[in-house]
Amino acid sequence: MTVMGRYQINAGLVLLLSFWSLAEARKLLVVPQDGSHWLSMRVVVEKLWERGHDIVAVIPEASLLMKSSENFTIKTYSVPYTQESLDRYYHAIGESCFQNPPLLEKITIMLKNISKMATMFSSTCRHLLYDEELMKYLQDSNFDAIMMDPVLPCGPIVAEFLSLPSVYFMRGLPCGLDYKATHCPNPSSYVPRLFTANSDHMMFTERVKNLLVGLSEHLLCYLLYSEYENLASEFLHRDVTILELFSTASIWLMRYDFVFEYPRPIMPNMIYVGGVNCKQKKPLSKEFEAIVNASGEHGIVVFSLGSMVSEIPMKKAIEITEALGSVPQTVLWRYTGQVPSNLPNNVKLVKWLPQNDLLAHPKTRAFITHGGSHGVYEAICNAVPMVLMPLFGDQMDNAKRVETRGAGLTLNILEMTSKDISDALRAVINDKKYKENIKRLSELHLDRPIHPLDLAVHWVEFVMRHKGAPHLRPAAHELNWIQYHSLDVFAFLLAVVLLSMFISLECCLFCFRRCFHKKGRTSKPTKSKSH
Amino acid sequence: MTVMGRYQINAGLVLLLSFWSLAEARKLLVVPQDGSHWLSMRVVVEKLWERGHDIVAVIPEASLLMKSSENFTIKTYSVPYTQESLDRYYHAIGESCFQNPPLLEKITIMLKNISKMATMFSSTCRHLLYDEELMKYLQDSNFDAIMMDPVLPCGPIVAEFLSLPSVYFMRGLPCGLDYKATHCPNPSSYVPRLFTANSDHMMFTERVKNLLVGLSEHLLCYLLYSEYENLASEFLHRDVTILELFSTASIWLMRYDFVFEYPRPIMPNMIYVGGVNCKQKKPLSKEFEAIVNASGEHGIVVFSLGSMVSEIPMKKAIEITEALGSVPQTVLWRYTGQVPSNLPNNVKLVKWLPQNDLLAHPKTRAFITHGGSHGVYEAICNAVPMVLMPLFGDQMDNAKRVETRGAGLTLNILEMTSKDISDALRAVINDKKYKENIKRLSELHLDRPIHPLDLAVHWVEFVMRHKGAPHLRPAAHELNWIQYHSLDVFAFLLAVVLLSMFISLECCLFCFRRCFHKKGRTSKPTKSKSH
Repeated sequence: MTVMGRYQINAGLVLLLSFWSLAEARKLLVVPQDGSHWLSMRVVVEKLWERGHDIVAVIPEASLLMKSSENFTIKTYSVPYTQESLDRYYHAIGESCFQNPPLLEKITIMLKNISKMATMFSSTCRHLLYDEELMKYLQDSNFDAIMMDPVLPCGPIVAEFLSLPSVYFMRGLPCGLDYKATHCPNPSSYVPRLFTANSDHMMFTERVKNLLVGLSEHLLCYLLYSEYENLASEFLHRDVTILELFSTASIWLMRYDFVFEYPRPIMPNMIYVGGVNCKQKKPLSKEFEAIVNASGEHGIVVFSLGSMVSEIPMKKAIEITEALGSVPQTVLWRYTGQVPSNLPNNVKLVKWLPQNDLLAHPKTRAFITHGGSHGVYEAICNAVPMVLMPLFGDQMDNAKRVETRGAGLTLNILEMTSKDISDALRAVINDKKYKENIKRLSELHLDRPIHPLDLAVHWVEFVMRHKGAPHLRPAAHELNWIQYHSLDVFAFLLAVVLLSMFISLECCLFCFRRCFHKKGRTSKPTKSKSH
Repeated sequence: MTVMGRYQINAGLVLLLSFWSLAEARKLLVVPQDGSHWLSMRVVVEKLWERGHDIVAVIPEASLLMKSSENFTIKTYSVPYTQESLDRYYHAIGESCFQNPPLLEKITIMLKNISKMATMFSSTCRHLLYDEELMKYLQDSNFDAIMMDPVLPCGPIVAEFLSLPSVYFMRGLPCGLDYKATHCPNPSSYVPRLFTANSDHMMFTERVKNLLVGLSEHLLCYLLYSEYENLASEFLHRDVTILELFSTASIWLMRYDFVFEYPRPIMPNMIYVGGVNCKQKKPLSKEFEAIVNASGEHGIVVFSLGSMVSEIPMKKAIEITEALGSVPQTVLWRYTGQVPSNLPNNVKLVKWLPQNDLLAHPKTRAFITHGGSHGVYEAICNAVPMVLMPLFGDQMDNAKRVETRGAGLTLNILEMTSKDISDALRAVINDKKYKENIKRLSELHLDRPIHPLDLAVHWVEFVMRHKGAPHLRPAAHELNWIQYHSLDVFAFLLAVVLLSMFISLECCLFCFRRCFHKKGRTSKPTKSKSH
């Protein structure tokens, strides 16, 4: 029998065929999060819609990327701000990335912004919860499950109110709330905390920083979540914490893959769907195809700072343009601001670009990115080395991850000079190790038994079919902190040991005293006798 | 567009088709473990062989279930015992399950048996390692990876010697060695230790027992593994511990599924393939088909005590037969001993039975089993409620898991009476809750995105393709115990706090003294002035 002759039809193929054809239409409620968060969740929601499920997403009337023109049913609710003021708000966040105030002022601004954001979005959530007509509609709809992005916890309150089993779809939560809520161990010795830009290999001082940042994150969570906690308690008519709400989640779909994230303890109800947003490559439009073909042997560089930042201060733009002009590649830059005066011929400014399709093109040599997780996964899927210019949020952490894997170089957007940019870009293009490293990561990432999109769809359908996933819920949820760490058992055993030692000592002393006393008593008569 | 019209070809289907057709033939070395352990590993090895890989398994000349007649290449090595003495050894283990000596004697016998087993099998391993011809052949074969059952750690020594990336295939290791070697947290407050028959919901006293058993397991591991440790150090010419060897494993294929096991922390390089042994149902032979069809509306009961126990003491056999005679079902009993004198018409003794095919038959009402994990998974796959008569090893733990799920009843094989057996059997057949519970478990177990066999095959191929899975290895491996638990960081922070307090106190005291002294000095002249 030849080697090829021995191949047989795969059992998984049969299973997947049945999985594909058996999907029974069910009802899913979706409570998404605006911004780039929505980009990858939409992929899953669309797939679920394609599979015939009845999907209702509730979104605010004003939003950045969530539009009411989706294929599935969209229900909007009014919000206490206009589309214009929201656009201004996001624009201001983008602008603030290029300001560099002194540290103390920076922290004050950051805390003020977080507080402002929490107030704004908890008020948005209040508008949803107290929209009687909409909530009545949701109550009457008999959903099988709810899928949400819990980073701003309006979804968990809706889930609790409607008593629906929930699927969380997310990348990470501040204060390790995801790990606390799932009782997943989270050792600070090798699991870097959010916003520290630590890797998993930390020096002593980094471990000290990691632990202290971990502790200080509680303030961040207080600022972010206390208003939601009050709202939840008020709306549900009982005292409730965000952690309590989060701990009811059935399945956590986490946009993680360990070619990018550092390996760490996980829990059975955490499903890893990193790369869920990497789409099949589509052909480029004529316009882009022409630019790419004209780039010659040097190929192209794709440059985008994400969905929230498409224009930057002119001084910075001129610096960047100068650097881009110094490389032989054609640079496709998503940029909507004023055209820099020094724009060279090899730099093409575009208002929008088909990022994944361009990254998938064999002529693409590098990707200049802000380090948002979506873009990084697209670069990994397509094996394109990166120059990272992190702006805010988890982007510093992402950049660190790419850099420790040798798949890119990070620049400080505030301090970088034209030469820094040009050097970094030349390095990732010309030094083969970057391409080799990203290729290795890409091969590992793509070598998986099931596509992350199908995995995500499977688990949402699983929760809809079985009304949750209680068999994946650890018994740790029923233990308090003392019991979980066996402190009561240790205390009991210590007490037993001490008591045994005390009793043994007392027995010894008693025997000793008896002997001594006896000796004393018996020696006296002897003494007297001898007299 | 209709609901059905919206179905589209699944991305996973495309991926799996490519996965199926892309498999490139590679070389795999297999070091299996005898007994029931081999039954499920063989399924994976056969699948890998079907997929065109070049497979060499090394097995001892004398063994219980591993035969040199397999499809793939088998290399045997001589052992210091005969097939007859090995058969006698396993027979004696089976017999000892029905003896009930006083506790102290029981423990002494158990420790003696473990010691005897360790000596016997480490000597088997020595024969393999010092079989120069065979080891030369293995060295020259340029394998891509090694797959092994590590419960008796001969495979890890071979892997280390040949510098091969390794895939472990197993269910559980004593002393939580699997969790220590992978740096997987293993809280004793809700993760029951082996051989405790605890569930994940423990009373205080059970948690005390769990912790103490966990500590005492070290003796068991010393007895089991110290000879292997000496052998490894001698053979590899350097001091090496079993834990060190185990911690080099790339992938741990664990025969776990959380419908059966209790949910607990896991690690990214642990792949869960519980139910890998559940085969597609095959039609029954004419002989068995006739028995099953003749059973009428009451159906059948399948009874087997596993591959190692097929005959039992006559007194016990008569008790069991009496109970089986009292139910209206036909009982198919795998039994090779002397026929009990009271054998009723409805009990059919057979030397072998197609267990999975019988359990898959719709007429099967119950399964009487010793609670080996293979049988339990077959019962779960086929939704058959169980009466469990655990004999040794992890079978008590397995029985507890089935019982806490309400899918079966456990009997103490030494103390059970004929009435106990009959009551338990009638209960699991007639009380609908047992069938409902096992049906629910079965549905959850079978509702998975990929068949465990394909998952296992994928990860073995992954390790062969990429020479390991280093991206799944946590940085915890580079930390010592103190660093892992951040004890040095806590000590440093405590020192900083104490030092700050000390300095603050000293400052206060200094100021206080200065003030007091000044006051004292200034008050005197005032006093003198007033005078």
